[in-house]
Amino acid sequence: MIDMVTNTHKEAGFIRNIAGRFARHPNQLNQLMQADAEILRYNGQYLVLKTDGIHEEIKTGLYESPYLIGWMSVTAPISDIAAVGAVPEGILLSLQLPMHQNQDWILEFQRGVNEACDCYQIYVLGGDTNSSDTVSVSVTAFAHIKTGEPLLRTGANPGDALYTTAKLGTGNAFGYSRFFDRSLEVQFLPTARLKEMDLIGEHANVCIDTSDGLFAALAVLSEVNQIGFCLQTPLINVLSADALLVHRQAELPEWMLLAGPHGEYELLFTVPQKKRIAFEKSCQSANWEPLYLGSVCSEIQLEFTSGHTAIRCHPSTIANLFYESGGDIAAYLRALMQQQQDWTNDPGL
Amino acid sequence: MIDMVTNTHKEAGFIRNIAGRFARHPNQLNQLMQADAEILRYNGQYLVLKTDGIHEEIKTGLYESPYLIGWMSVTAPISDIAAVGAVPEGILLSLQLPMHQNQDWILEFQRGVNEACDCYQIYVLGGDTNSSDTVSVSVTAFAHIKTGEPLLRTGANPGDALYTTAKLGTGNAFGYSRFFDRSLEVQFLPTARLKEMDLIGEHANVCIDTSDGLFAALAVLSEVNQIGFCLQTPLINVLSADALLVHRQAELPEWMLLAGPHGEYELLFTVPQKKRIAFEKSCQSANWEPLYLGSVCSEIQLEFTSGHTAIRCHPSTIANLFYESGGDIAAYLRALMQQQQDWTNDPGL
Repeated sequence: MIDMVTNTHKEAGFIRNIAGRFARHPNQLNQLMQADAEILRYNGQYLVLKTDGIHEEIKTGLYESPYLIGWMSVTAPISDIAAVGAVPEGILLSLQLPMHQNQDWILEFQRGVNEACDCYQIYVLGGDTNSSDTVSVSVTAFAHIKTGEPLLRTGANPGDALYTTAKLGTGNAFGYSRFFDRSLEVQFLPTARLKEMDLIGEHANVCIDTSDGLFAALAVLSEVNQIGFCLQTPLINVLSADALLVHRQAELPEWMLLAGPHGEYELLFTVPQKKRIAFEKSCQSANWEPLYLGSVCSEIQLEFTSGHTAIRCHPSTIANLFYESGGDIAAYLRALMQQQQDWTNDPGL
Repeated sequence: MIDMVTNTHKEAGFIRNIAGRFARHPNQLNQLMQADAEILRYNGQYLVLKTDGIHEEIKTGLYESPYLIGWMSVTAPISDIAAVGAVPEGILLSLQLPMHQNQDWILEFQRGVNEACDCYQIYVLGGDTNSSDTVSVSVTAFAHIKTGEPLLRTGANPGDALYTTAKLGTGNAFGYSRFFDRSLEVQFLPTARLKEMDLIGEHANVCIDTSDGLFAALAVLSEVNQIGFCLQTPLINVLSADALLVHRQAELPEWMLLAGPHGEYELLFTVPQKKRIAFEKSCQSANWEPLYLGSVCSEIQLEFTSGHTAIRCHPSTIANLFYESGGDIAAYLRALMQQQQDWTNDPGL
């Protein structure tokens, strides 16, 4: 039995509390939560803006290398720009760092920013720098839609096919290796999926990035579309090589590697049934294979198979566990373990 | 004797160290430090972007009221948008706050943001929210140039007249009242000078806002134009009513109320001699009176009269005092006092 009242998506509630009291721009296309980036009708075209930050990743020690912090400062907002199908122009970099930050640190951070900008063919347009006890970065990306309409998070329908751009779980595997077992070697340096959007944009009706992890992304898509998902592909076949490593070495159930809030910056998108054949043909021609996960269903629920267990729950159940742990990583791992125990007793099916 | 080697503008050096290693966008009009906001040639027009933050103001306790924090989060970047002569469209709000921040605090912050947005006829386009131990806000404003060319910080010439939009010193008077003497009642709620720009933009050749205080703004203009300033108007006539109050009650020399890094968000601009009469006539017709400060000179120096003392120094001398104090407010006040002592012995003239 799925509890529909308590299982609302709690982070969405938090965002609505903070941002829901601001009037919308009359030319803004998207409502709150309706897209990965902000889209503005402007002189007969669409301009796109997105602010994203690297704060908790630094504070918790998840990101330590200044190169990685620089790379991710750019990649995080550009991944959102990719999700709406936009072409980025540049970024503004708001940097807080100690007044006498080590010069080697600054050079490595700059190298990370520069190499990510090269990768996405964009530029640092400007920014501001403030002195602070700890490092913190907030980046705003500016982009435009080249042709056609932007992709939103809304518009999915029962029967649509659900895909990702690649196997998932590397972000959480990296998190586990950093916080719980440093003997596990997990490389984390994702690239925003700008190039793949040429193929996706033509066929998909909904898109979101997995920067907060797969289950958080599914919770958002479920909430804004009032739909559910049936993941026909067993999760063992969804995990990336790094995620599989952690799954085996740490003996974590598959679903946990897709549950944490540190995602892998892939894109998650739906394709209407009637466009599936054309989409898969285009992908073949381009020598690229997206990963089929399952399908959209009309009931607001989430079905998946983790290990030998077929599980059915509310789409927000997994995403809410982190929020309810108040950001305490040890408490969060305990909450995940408790959830596994609960499902072993009653998988909801 | 002015020491030209040690008296480089230190904050500019800091900014160049952080931001000077990034490639510029081929369509970006302004170089680093050359404008208050970033200006991009785009589809036959100019788009303008600016990131600014409210960090140290919160951390030091200078801004305590959530309404003021909300108001200033919007006003700070919009003041820069005004300085380049642009028309703002909206902002993106990157907010860090404790996960269980008091709901009354959030409502008051939102009221400050909303009322500032109403005042400037703009909207919150989006943003992101992160949990953090302390509150911190970074805002990116998006704008465009309606007609003509944007105003930069470069282009001033010896002989140009220097003006501000109003009397100055309220920002530092507020700072003094908050940090050193709470019995002094100073109101601080500046409005970005968007409206005045219709008059200024037509006649000025250089503009910068005084968000970091008058002397910091003059140091920047001096550095990017390789010019100096002779402030013919005695500083006693430049101080706002609140600054005069603190000047008298706290027995601080006039120049100190214009020295601190917490400015008043007025605009500082130069008008070529041949345009002065037309400019002042336009102002009269609009029933508005800017404040004449003095003139641009070719020598890289700063001359002004504070109290009975005529002072000559390098344009960066005063601005550097705060930077050299490492952000320690008590040490900064001592450095200001020491500077006054030095000038009493040798005013440099």
